[in-house]
Amino acid sequence: MIRKIDHIGIAVPDAEAALAVFRDALGLELTHTEDVASQKVTAYQLRVGESSLELLVPNDPESVIAKFLAKRGQGVHHIALAVDDIDAEIARMKAAGLEPLSETPTPGAGGKRVIFFHPRTTGGVLLELCGA
Amino acid sequence: MIRKIDHIGIAVPDAEAALAVFRDALGLELTHTEDVASQKVTAYQLRVGESSLELLVPNDPESVIAKFLAKRGQGVHHIALAVDDIDAEIARMKAAGLEPLSETPTPGAGGKRVIFFHPRTTGGVLLELCGA
Repeated sequence: MIRKIDHIGIAVPDAEAALAVFRDALGLELTHTEDVASQKVTAYQLRVGESSLELLVPNDPESVIAKFLAKRGQGVHHIALAVDDIDAEIARMKAAGLEPLSETPTPGAGGKRVIFFHPRTTGGVLLELCGA
Repeated sequence: MIRKIDHIGIAVPDAEAALAVFRDALGLELTHTEDVASQKVTAYQLRVGESSLELLVPNDPESVIAKFLAKRGQGVHHIALAVDDIDAEIARMKAAGLEPLSETPTPGAGGKRVIFFHPRTTGGVLLELCGA
């Protein structure tokens, strides 16, 4: 079962400019900052109710986020949904024709098991599932 | 104060194909369907925790959503944040240099007072504030 929106990933080129908007102008609390080495990004999490906005700033030109910014510009990169049983969700979604980007979940931010689904099969939205 | 993510608006060309993904494959509950005449769209709201995903399907080629689809393809269109005091938030955000798309809030889906901010000033994200 899908419990909530875990976070919305937003690709931005400049952490200070984005924090000026989301932390300072909107008044959201910055709860966590993490260098995610596997993705070559720094992630800034700002709490909104039970969810977060996750600002994603590339720290290497080869980062997938740097490539996204070059192609699409800054803006929403993915939507992450928190699930109770990630393996059951993956099985159900694959059976319905949705395509995961990896065979099995991998460790994401905070050590949660995560998996992404191809936007081609999910209404143009890069969807992430976050397990426990 | 920003209370929660009210909804994430997702532009899609075909309601049945998108419902097959978000309602059937993901198992989200379709809680509300509404024709929003002012925007020339039909909105399908699917509950996720305290928030919703809002599928936006144009029902006229002049709809702003039809133009978005033609230019960007399907995907996330806007993020809507629920606030306690929309007038106070607007004043604070304008003082910080964020640009609203209208002078004052207008009636949105469900009769709530809403206002949008230009993505140029909000990290590339079309932001909507939803009042009470």
